[in-house]
Amino acid sequence: IVNLSSCFVQGILERLDAGEIVIGDGGFVFALEKRGYVKAGPWTPEATVEHPEAVRQLHREFLRAGSNVLQTFTFYASEDKLENRGNYVAEKISCNKVNEAACDIAREVANEGDALVAGGVSQTPSYLSCKDKTEVKAAFQKQLEVFMKKNVDFLIAEYFEHVEEAVWAVEVLKESGKPVAATMCIGPEGDMHGVPPGQCAVQLVKAGASIVGVNCHFDAETSIETVRLMKEGLQAAKLKAHLMCQPLAFHTPDCGKQGFIDLPEFPFGLEPRIATRWDIQKYARKAYDLGIRFIGGCCGFEPYHIRAIAEELAPERGFLPEASEKHGTWGDNLSMHTKPWVRARARKEYWENLKPASGRPYCPCMSKPDGWGVTKGAKELMQQKEATTEQQLKELFQKKKF
Amino acid sequence: IVNLSSCFVQGILERLDAGEIVIGDGGFVFALEKRGYVKAGPWTPEATVEHPEAVRQLHREFLRAGSNVLQTFTFYASEDKLENRGNYVAEKISCNKVNEAACDIAREVANEGDALVAGGVSQTPSYLSCKDKTEVKAAFQKQLEVFMKKNVDFLIAEYFEHVEEAVWAVEVLKESGKPVAATMCIGPEGDMHGVPPGQCAVQLVKAGASIVGVNCHFDAETSIETVRLMKEGLQAAKLKAHLMCQPLAFHTPDCGKQGFIDLPEFPFGLEPRIATRWDIQKYARKAYDLGIRFIGGCCGFEPYHIRAIAEELAPERGFLPEASEKHGTWGDNLSMHTKPWVRARARKEYWENLKPASGRPYCPCMSKPDGWGVTKGAKELMQQKEATTEQQLKELFQKKKF
Amino acid sequence: IVNLSSCFVQGILERLDAGEIVIGDGGFVFALEKRGYVKAGPWTPEATVEHPEAVRQLHREFLRAGSNVLQTFTFYASEDKLENRGNYVAEKISCNKVNEAACDIAREVANEGDALVAGGVSQTPSYLSCKDKTEVKAAFQKQLEVFMKKNVDFLIAEYFEHVEEAVWAVEVLKESGKPVAATMCIGPEGDMHGVPPGQCAVQLVKAGASIVGVNCHFDAETSIETVRLMKEGLQAAKLKAHLMCQPLAFHTPDCGKQGFIDLPEFPFGLEPRIATRWDIQKYARKAYDLGIRFIGGCCGFEPYHIRAIAEELAPERGFLPEASEKHGTWGDNLSMHTKPWVRARARKEYWENLKPASGRPYCPCMSKPDGWGVTKGAKELMQQKEATTEQQLKELFQKKKF
Amino acid sequence: IVNLSSCFVQGILERLDAGEIVIGDGGFVFALEKRGYVKAGPWTPEATVEHPEAVRQLHREFLRAGSNVLQTFTFYASEDKLENRGNYVAEKISCNKVNEAACDIAREVANEGDALVAGGVSQTPSYLSCKDKTEVKAAFQKQLEVFMKKNVDFLIAEYFEHVEEAVWAVEVLKESGKPVAATMCIGPEGDMHGVPPGQCAVQLVKAGASIVGVNCHFDAETSIETVRLMKEGLQAAKLKAHLMCQPLAFHTPDCGKQGFIDLPEFPFGLEPRIATRWDIQKYARKAYDLGIRFIGGCCGFEPYHIRAIAEELAPERGFLPEASEKHGTWGDNLSMHTKPWVRARARKEYWENLKPASGRPYCPCMSKPDGWGVTKGAKELMQQKEATTEQQLKELFQKKKF
Repeated sequence: IVNLSSCFVQGILERLDAGEIVIGDGGFVFALEKRGYVKAGPWTPEATVEHPEAVRQLHREFLRAGSNVLQTFTFYASEDKLENRGNYVAEKISCNKVNEAACDIAREVANEGDALVAGGVSQTPSYLSCKDKTEVKAAFQKQLEVFMKKNVDFLIAEYFEHVEEAVWAVEVLKESGKPVAATMCIGPEGDMHGVPPGQCAVQLVKAGASIVGVNCHFDAETSIETVRLMKEGLQAAKLKAHLMCQPLAFHTPDCGKQGFIDLPEFPFGLEPRIATRWDIQKYARKAYDLGIRFIGGCCGFEPYHIRAIAEELAPERGFLPEASEKHGTWGDNLSMHTKPWVRARARKEYWENLKPASGRPYCPCMSKPDGWGVTKGAKELMQQKEATTEQQLKELFQKKKF
Repeated sequence: IVNLSSCFVQGILERLDAGEIVIGDGGFVFALEKRGYVKAGPWTPEATVEHPEAVRQLHREFLRAGSNVLQTFTFYASEDKLENRGNYVAEKISCNKVNEAACDIAREVANEGDALVAGGVSQTPSYLSCKDKTEVKAAFQKQLEVFMKKNVDFLIAEYFEHVEEAVWAVEVLKESGKPVAATMCIGPEGDMHGVPPGQCAVQLVKAGASIVGVNCHFDAETSIETVRLMKEGLQAAKLKAHLMCQPLAFHTPDCGKQGFIDLPEFPFGLEPRIATRWDIQKYARKAYDLGIRFIGGCCGFEPYHIRAIAEELAPERGFLPEASEKHGTWGDNLSMHTKPWVRARARKEYWENLKPASGRPYCPCMSKPDGWGVTKGAKELMQQKEATTEQQLKELFQKKKF
Repeated sequence: IVNLSSCFVQGILERLDAGEIVIGDGGFVFALEKRGYVKAGPWTPEATVEHPEAVRQLHREFLRAGSNVLQTFTFYASEDKLENRGNYVAEKISCNKVNEAACDIAREVANEGDALVAGGVSQTPSYLSCKDKTEVKAAFQKQLEVFMKKNVDFLIAEYFEHVEEAVWAVEVLKESGKPVAATMCIGPEGDMHGVPPGQCAVQLVKAGASIVGVNCHFDAETSIETVRLMKEGLQAAKLKAHLMCQPLAFHTPDCGKQGFIDLPEFPFGLEPRIATRWDIQKYARKAYDLGIRFIGGCCGFEPYHIRAIAEELAPERGFLPEASEKHGTWGDNLSMHTKPWVRARARKEYWENLKPASGRPYCPCMSKPDGWGVTKGAKELMQQKEATTEQQLKELFQKKKF
Repeated sequence: IVNLSSCFVQGILERLDAGEIVIGDGGFVFALEKRGYVKAGPWTPEATVEHPEAVRQLHREFLRAGSNVLQTFTFYASEDKLENRGNYVAEKISCNKVNEAACDIAREVANEGDALVAGGVSQTPSYLSCKDKTEVKAAFQKQLEVFMKKNVDFLIAEYFEHVEEAVWAVEVLKESGKPVAATMCIGPEGDMHGVPPGQCAVQLVKAGASIVGVNCHFDAETSIETVRLMKEGLQAAKLKAHLMCQPLAFHTPDCGKQGFIDLPEFPFGLEPRIATRWDIQKYARKAYDLGIRFIGGCCGFEPYHIRAIAEELAPERGFLPEASEKHGTWGDNLSMHTKPWVRARARKEYWENLKPASGRPYCPCMSKPDGWGVTKGAKELMQQKEATTEQQLKELFQKKKF
């Protein structure tokens, strides 16, 4: 495969420096979990090797929806994480193989359009267990080698709860000479050690990141607020960087410092929280108004959510994504519906003001997040876990030798 | 392509007669709309020709999730419907081409496993506008010819609001000699002329359907109640047929006689109503307990919802679907999560009792359905429709010549 | 005290026969429980003797609000019930004393306006425990003797779950020669033995009731539906009677056959369900439109709810109640508010369309009713009941010798 | 009337200095509006002259419920306010007459127990319109003269949105030599000029208040947070004062800086927000834990809410209020209910954990507050106000010459 894009397509910094809006992609682990290719819990990306067609199709859908950046599906693909969760992987698949396949698939689809390929690293179990700088950096280094070999267009260090580890990641990636973006999965309260967002941004830029922001863990509104604090921090420190935002496509006004992980619905009961396309259009507009120019999504973002960003910002950009061929703006195609009252929904004001009902009158609107306080009860529950029909099913699993 | 399945795999009636559970597939138009390949409003399946890889991938995901039947993506693919909405189709694609491509793709994926291919017809604009029996039957006949040429395994007449038209469809399909299933998109109040479900079932069986039931328009609970009434009708008439259910994966306790179409959230604000996998497991169990043996889904059903049916009924069937490789039962894989309180969610009781929050405290739980009463206001609104930035975007559409 | 009303004021039947609207009063046990004079659980009316000033004031508020009928506060004042709950009554107060005081207080206040006094009986523990007709009738007879001695204007047999017992009550009351009204606390499903509302109405009229309907247990919407079924039953049987409705002022769309008793919120968590004055205006209009002419309330109805009935029907009646002096129609007095946006609420359309928020995002909208199915768990819970600080408080109760 | 209490009963400061818990009373204007004696909008207390029996009864209910302080019903009884709203008052009732009657009634009831009488002043229209210190102080002075003549036990300056005016009030009241309490109707964001709670508290104490805190406008949780900030402010300034809290009995997590006035439900649609007795017990405990010792309520607080404070703090105080005679702790009396599942509710754990449903599935949980931003629309709406049946009713009002 020849990397056409690096020849003809402008790089990420050229685009952002020119004031262009760059649209990111959506959440792979959640989307592929629902499609049957990723395990919730480990969330590792061995599907790049096992089922490349599924990964390729999802990339393609994001590309059609308007993504200008395709991230390699290398989330949690550091060697330590893959080994840590290795008992789940049917045949042992090497870290390199997973990362290489991810690069190849992303590049193949990127070449179907004019998208850039970004190689991505994320937080490591090593940091949590040992915090040894050398060991952690080695994990990033190993992934970086693949990215260099496959010649990705730029690099993203994403999903970091601790700015210290994120800085280490940026330092490693920066040595490559490629542009580096860095996003943390934090809210306005800051990282897990209490470093506020403004300071996180300053440290990341000082370490070499050209683009900083947040991804995952919080809804759009909260994430934009966090980026606003980052922007303030950078301004106070007289530093310059591009801003980036890739939030959840779930409404999570009720979550605490650690985000949606702690909500009782995580990860298998989040459906009522899923954002509509109109919610995402509001997000895109707010992000733009704050000066964020790298606008994408994380867990919960499906292709139609990315398309919503592209459609909201089409007036500024002057074009629509390919998938808008199948989508009238503001429900426009509904004007062909047989029922007049459905036709009457084909307008901006209708969808902008709709307060969608949940159809779940026995459910509340908000939840209390779990946390360390419940650990004792949790432990007991895990011990009590009955092994009845569930046991039976697990045996079936083993027999079938997946 | 050689049709392997018709040689080695048992037919639909052999399976059902033997007491097997047959798992259907999910909703193509909604899933592919979100993936960027289908227009909401027309809902026509020209993607089979335009983007076969996307249709193929969705079939494959349902197969992996446990579907024993792959329905050809021929919903609304009658000639009159395609022409009616033809102005939406970029290049005019012939009815035959759409139907043939649909058959080929379904067969190709079915052969990756042991699934059956079902050719499907649905209600026609001709019936609504003229109700001429000959004309309507001719539309079904035209689709049937493709199904026979492509040698599908059996036939489904689905999504009928009027039993009269459904009977006509069954009569046409029955002449092929292949087994015929028939489902209506009605609730307990019956069809749009007020024919109650029990009578609908009787008429369909008398017309030649071997399998009857409902699909679309209503949530699982309501659909099961409708099938229960069909069962009662058949028993009273001393008729025998297999029962089938393919409901929405949306909670719609608040909809009226015409189902979810009339809810204000249709079709772009239904997210808070999406069923969790656990909701679907409850549905599968209830359907099974009522004696329904063809259990699938319609709009809103994604691959993981179909997998939920297969996992719930795994004890009865003795096996799990392929995609369960990536899914522990009852969130089992969460026991590997780093946080103890998330690990504590890895159990049946937790997910069964969860009342998932919407994260939307400014939204209600139920909506009042629209209907004829609002038509006047609707008309005014359509006239008032402003042509500002929306107009701008539409011009972009035209310029880009999709 | 001279009974002025019986000299100058028209009787209940004269009023209803003349087509007048008669407005009932509200719920005494709930209102007085909140004011500190009635025990939830026993719900007996010994306050007529212990705290006559509190009972008098509540009667007066209902009179000012527009009540044309003051019911003696004799709910659950049969001898068997008072004895049954006797351990709760500080000094043993005789049944006769309670009933006599109730009559005196009601008459005293009725004479402040032009209201009628209605002596009331309700279902008895004797019926539930023995069902001996003679014994049950004797209980009613004993109360009736007081009503005759005190010369009430008419009689109401109310809050019956079993039509059999209600018929016995009507038979006893009818012998007095005074007009008899009879209401059951049932919903559309009928009485506890499954007798449907239409048949209940027929039996009550045949037993001698001139006015029939429902009270308590269900919200306004459900209660009106039940009266509609009663009306149908009477029409089918070619019987004539006036219709009466005294529902809850709580929204209870989620309750089962036995009404709000079974809701988990009963009786100490019903606040979020309390009807607004505008809800009650809608109720009054609907009741009127169905032909109900005796329109009042039961548990939850406070004086301002009764005033809402009187204000809604003021155009038909041609006058407003005294308490409307302190209440502009549709929030009219708000037009004097200092803030313009609060002034803007002084209009019908605003309040009619308001969907009031609960301020409780962690609570659901509907509950699952309790019932016999939970009895086993309930029993265990009662055994487990801890006696810690609660015990301490109970001892304080005893020491203080209330 | 001889003022017995001032002879035998300890004063407010003696009690608080001794560490006693002092329980306030509830909200008069809201309770009496529902009982038919106060107009929403003007909220003036002419009922003290027009209907003393109604005011007396409410005082008595609060006394029985456990109130140790009876506030004279002199809210908004400054001369300027009464004149301002004079067109609403049937016969012109003098300011002095209203204030004197209020003192007499409060004292009469206080003497039925051991409660203290507190004379109360609140914010004036004069402050808002002219802000002339002399004029505003004169209004307070006029009320104070009545309080001195009637020899109230202490004084409360309450419901101030601007600390400047509250300070003026305290300065006037302080000259009397009686103890002065001062509460503002503010939230954590501070007064309407942006003075934070801590500074407000400092200014009030410096002006002479011995007790400071908040009342009205916000729910219990928010009010406690505001008092916490006041406490911090006083500690930082090394000032000492007793703390006081009298919040709403409505849940208002969604209100803005100006509190519940701006919520769309104010004042006629607040029912779903009403606190349960158990909510109030939680409030009492939290207030106590923060060190607040003057604990009462404001709008929405009914007698049973005050009783809930007294019952929650009975272990600390060693006694129960009189009205607890009619109330088992934690629903204790329910153990005598006929239905076992209702009996099972007679326990603390049940009520503490209940998430009460609203019975309103078409309503949201939270609202967006109104405010200056909507003024323009509001103005138009006021002009459009139709004068149909409402006009008709208003004419009836006038004819009846209330």
